[in-house]
Amino acid sequence: MGDKIEYKYLSHIDSPTDLRKLKPDELPTVCKELRTDILEELAENPGHLGASLGTVELTVALHYAYDTPNDRIVWDVGHQAYGHKILTGRRDKFCTNRKLHGLKPFPFPSESEYDTFCCGHASNSISAALGMAVSARLLGEKRRVVAVIGDGAMSGGLAFEGINNAGVIPNDMLIILNDNHMSIDKSVGGMRQYLLQLSTNSTYNNIRHRLARKLTSWGLLTENRRKGLIRFNNSVKSLLTRQQNIFEGMDIRYFGPVDGHDVKELVRVFNIIKDMTGPKILHVITTKGKGYAPAEQDATIWHAPGKFDFDTGELIHKDDGTPHPPRFQDVFGITLLELAQKNPRIVGVTPAMPTGCSMNIMMKALPERTFDVGIAEGHAVTFSGGMAKDGLLPFCNIYSSFMQRAYDNIIHDAAIMKLNMVLCLDRAGIVGEDGPTHHGAFDLAFLRPIPNLTICSPLNEPELRRMMYTAQQKDMGTVVIRYPRGCGSVVDWRCELEAIPVGKGVKLRSEEEGKAEVCILSLGPIGMEAAKGILIAEMKAGHTKSVAHYDMRFLKPIDEDILHEVEKKFKRVITVEDGVIEGGLGSAVLEFFADNGYRDIEVIRVGMPDEFVEHGTVQELYKICGMDAESIAKLL
Amino acid sequence: MGDKIEYKYLSHIDSPTDLRKLKPDELPTVCKELRTDILEELAENPGHLGASLGTVELTVALHYAYDTPNDRIVWDVGHQAYGHKILTGRRDKFCTNRKLHGLKPFPFPSESEYDTFCCGHASNSISAALGMAVSARLLGEKRRVVAVIGDGAMSGGLAFEGINNAGVIPNDMLIILNDNHMSIDKSVGGMRQYLLQLSTNSTYNNIRHRLARKLTSWGLLTENRRKGLIRFNNSVKSLLTRQQNIFEGMDIRYFGPVDGHDVKELVRVFNIIKDMTGPKILHVITTKGKGYAPAEQDATIWHAPGKFDFDTGELIHKDDGTPHPPRFQDVFGITLLELAQKNPRIVGVTPAMPTGCSMNIMMKALPERTFDVGIAEGHAVTFSGGMAKDGLLPFCNIYSSFMQRAYDNIIHDAAIMKLNMVLCLDRAGIVGEDGPTHHGAFDLAFLRPIPNLTICSPLNEPELRRMMYTAQQKDMGTVVIRYPRGCGSVVDWRCELEAIPVGKGVKLRSEEEGKAEVCILSLGPIGMEAAKGILIAEMKAGHTKSVAHYDMRFLKPIDEDILHEVEKKFKRVITVEDGVIEGGLGSAVLEFFADNGYRDIEVIRVGMPDEFVEHGTVQELYKICGMDAESIAKLL
Repeated sequence: MGDKIEYKYLSHIDSPTDLRKLKPDELPTVCKELRTDILEELAENPGHLGASLGTVELTVALHYAYDTPNDRIVWDVGHQAYGHKILTGRRDKFCTNRKLHGLKPFPFPSESEYDTFCCGHASNSISAALGMAVSARLLGEKRRVVAVIGDGAMSGGLAFEGINNAGVIPNDMLIILNDNHMSIDKSVGGMRQYLLQLSTNSTYNNIRHRLARKLTSWGLLTENRRKGLIRFNNSVKSLLTRQQNIFEGMDIRYFGPVDGHDVKELVRVFNIIKDMTGPKILHVITTKGKGYAPAEQDATIWHAPGKFDFDTGELIHKDDGTPHPPRFQDVFGITLLELAQKNPRIVGVTPAMPTGCSMNIMMKALPERTFDVGIAEGHAVTFSGGMAKDGLLPFCNIYSSFMQRAYDNIIHDAAIMKLNMVLCLDRAGIVGEDGPTHHGAFDLAFLRPIPNLTICSPLNEPELRRMMYTAQQKDMGTVVIRYPRGCGSVVDWRCELEAIPVGKGVKLRSEEEGKAEVCILSLGPIGMEAAKGILIAEMKAGHTKSVAHYDMRFLKPIDEDILHEVEKKFKRVITVEDGVIEGGLGSAVLEFFADNGYRDIEVIRVGMPDEFVEHGTVQELYKICGMDAESIAKLL
Repeated sequence: MGDKIEYKYLSHIDSPTDLRKLKPDELPTVCKELRTDILEELAENPGHLGASLGTVELTVALHYAYDTPNDRIVWDVGHQAYGHKILTGRRDKFCTNRKLHGLKPFPFPSESEYDTFCCGHASNSISAALGMAVSARLLGEKRRVVAVIGDGAMSGGLAFEGINNAGVIPNDMLIILNDNHMSIDKSVGGMRQYLLQLSTNSTYNNIRHRLARKLTSWGLLTENRRKGLIRFNNSVKSLLTRQQNIFEGMDIRYFGPVDGHDVKELVRVFNIIKDMTGPKILHVITTKGKGYAPAEQDATIWHAPGKFDFDTGELIHKDDGTPHPPRFQDVFGITLLELAQKNPRIVGVTPAMPTGCSMNIMMKALPERTFDVGIAEGHAVTFSGGMAKDGLLPFCNIYSSFMQRAYDNIIHDAAIMKLNMVLCLDRAGIVGEDGPTHHGAFDLAFLRPIPNLTICSPLNEPELRRMMYTAQQKDMGTVVIRYPRGCGSVVDWRCELEAIPVGKGVKLRSEEEGKAEVCILSLGPIGMEAAKGILIAEMKAGHTKSVAHYDMRFLKPIDEDILHEVEKKFKRVITVEDGVIEGGLGSAVLEFFADNGYRDIEVIRVGMPDEFVEHGTVQELYKICGMDAESIAKLL
């Protein structure tokens, strides 16, 4: 990554202990340096930019005011924690962030003692922090616990469950509500409006600030009085706004809002409240992308912008002018709109990912039929279920690893009633740099046992279109279509929309006449790796190989005709799937063979192993998992 | 069930249309009859009593004021819906409630057009109802939508996600908050306190009632004025209590609280608000077990009391004096306390089921170390994760089918960090009368693919104790112990607490020397059915059978020594598990054999089929699924 810039302060901060040796007046410069460092690094080595720029001051203030790592800071969604990594001894390694064997994409306990909990999925920080606070109390350990949660993550039911419980279990934790007025796209929901009301009540804010200033100038702000003042603030606020704050109604004291980019003010407030007993919420207002004009202007694009030119703010798109296959998500987005324009019953549902799954295309054209429900995967599915029950046909798009949050909803609010709806699982299989929390590893295995479901995965873009068309036909029940992150393989992808037969695969390649030995059964775009694997094996062998290749298309119902045929013809079957090896396609084939008394056939299963697969490029990880073309070639 | 009582009104109400022909003044008698009918039926034919007694007036008023089935009533948790069944054409069949091929335990769309959505699991009504409201709007159908949700279910994150979204999506739905101050046990959490504050603010209530009465007496209460009055009420309330209601802060209008046992008042309120536009919440106060003194006095016992004497209120316990095996839940509860008394790091966590899982035993003895977190399964697991991360050892007990709600939490907030915690899945496998939403069918299949987990299931009570002891040893990581509803098989169950080797099964019965043909591999107490099956087969054959039987104990890691041995010795293996057939024990065995190139052995898998298994007694359902001793005998 080239030479590190030499910073006045940052270059000498190897841990928060170094930070805490500085004077409060020096902190704004630290923040400036930290922001520059994040920007310089991310310009070269892409990552989640916007959120981490927004929390620079918060991060510095937290590590300055709190005694980390003994005190616990629990980040909700690690996107916001790049500054945290740099300040906690990982400055030099930060250039390896998100790379194979490099720093992990999100804070993770095994990487640093400053990383307190896994934070890839949103909304878990309050529950985890509450657990830590209880642990400290019961084990008699003196430590403070702070959860830092964005306003987007606040719409997740888990966050509510945590707050609901935090009000009644004895604890002294602080919840910092990092309110940047959006999550990845604009955050939505009633809670959002509620927070906005809290933070924009200018009468209250004016009076509060005037009082605070006056009391400070009179020299009345001793530690005890400060506490009293904050309580007084709350009373003033209640009186003026006729609000009883929901949080205070739940017995959690509410402080704020405070300016999240005033690092000295943050430190002052932390020092006031950090030793107060009982659960507390501090409402902090920040700006996503703060301090970098292009990122402040379009927070959605700059959430994770890829490479960019630090000086001009231009995004660097690699485009050599040659046509290339589209991203699966765009094929989904464009096809969904096409289908919706023809079928008035179709509606779209996404939990806070309209841009990520390209449902924004339909949202723009048919806003009244497209619903961004916020980070709330369970609700997304059940809400879709309600619409399906009364005649609409929802396409509900949720990243595979986030669909783990709606497992019961799929069973209880969709499949059991055979509701007509389509669950589209984007980011299925290995996703690459976002690592183990984001790989869509488990969906095939956890969905297959659910009765009534139809589960399919397209080999390529035209197949995705056909599967979407097929799924929206009459009385199809609950259909799952899973496809990966990134691009497919077909440049000329805009095929006619037509139905494919449910539960039927296709033979992509035939064995040589009379030489049936090995066949590959693949599901989804990983089938392209298998196809490549055959070619590699042939090149190595120097002659054609008698390998048949079937694209199963459907995991459920599985194509029994193919399986009967395969068993009759071949001695070896290799199943290839982009998911965990236990319980998926390979297991389904084994079960079918066992149930039919087929024992003369060898089955080799290729897929993700029984461990959490780390981060790296997709190709690196395919290789590690033995799912790349080279590895498959070796099996032939 | 004997002859049906002849009621003045109820006997002539075959649908809500009949109900709507009555005058408001006749409704209190209908309620009285309905309550008697529920009590008479449940005294004989056990079911969920408390909740349904509490909603008698609400049910009558809803079907009276709303145009069901065109208007949609979405019950949250069908426990409260017995009155609804009786009023909607199922009075005569109500004696078959919860019996095999009889009425379903919970409202379900395929049973009646009045049943709008699946309602076995709590907290889904608002999301589903919102979907229906959107559906009606987009399809141009004129109908009203009402969700009826208990205060207990309000602690579920899904309910919050639904409300959060209901404030921003255009809809006219009504959410009835049925506040009976408890769910199954006492409901807990900050929201509870918040609701209590709302409902007990007597200043507000007094003024509101006085104003309403005065305006009515002046003849000023026309339809329009009524609406104005309710809005006025809210303003008065805000002024007097300095509360801005959280619901109103989220743009959902709040009405109430109203007396949920005043049927005429309920009808009056419904008629006022039912055609108001925009989302609304009506806060209704009810008493669980209302109208039956014993049930009002102890709502926990009378939640689902079993048979009882209607006149005396005595519960009828079948007890012939002979000693019998304990319930698994009690073995769990007693053993947990024993362990916790010796190991100070152990804490207990339950989502609203302290009585149901017998954690109330520990709760009573060690209240500060036992946490009822309310209906919030996701939080229960993540909160446990936080405690585990900082040194405590949580035993988190969640019914198997409800654990579907914490799937992501198990992966993301426990297993990935290898946290030391024990997840106890009560009600695993077929549960009987509670039917398809409550069978713990999927846990083995959905848990097995998760890396780092240890998964086991005890054959009987002493084994449960040993597994619990084993799981709480040092550095065991995340351990799952699953066991069924009901009693085990060992009367003298209080064995010493000792460890068993992880990942090792035991041979329960050996084949005859030199005659190794068939062997059974079972997991969990269903192994007792298998053992019985062997005896039955022998009785039928008239001679001993050479059948070996292994209790696998662990699904993960699976005992590879046993599997190697079995493959060498036997020609046929029968796997027996109390869970869905895809992806569980049978699949694990198939995968192992395939991975080791073992092809000379036939594998027959016994378990739940790929369909939602209906309700009935456990034995009836075992038989239907081919999992009973007789069916297993036929395979030998």
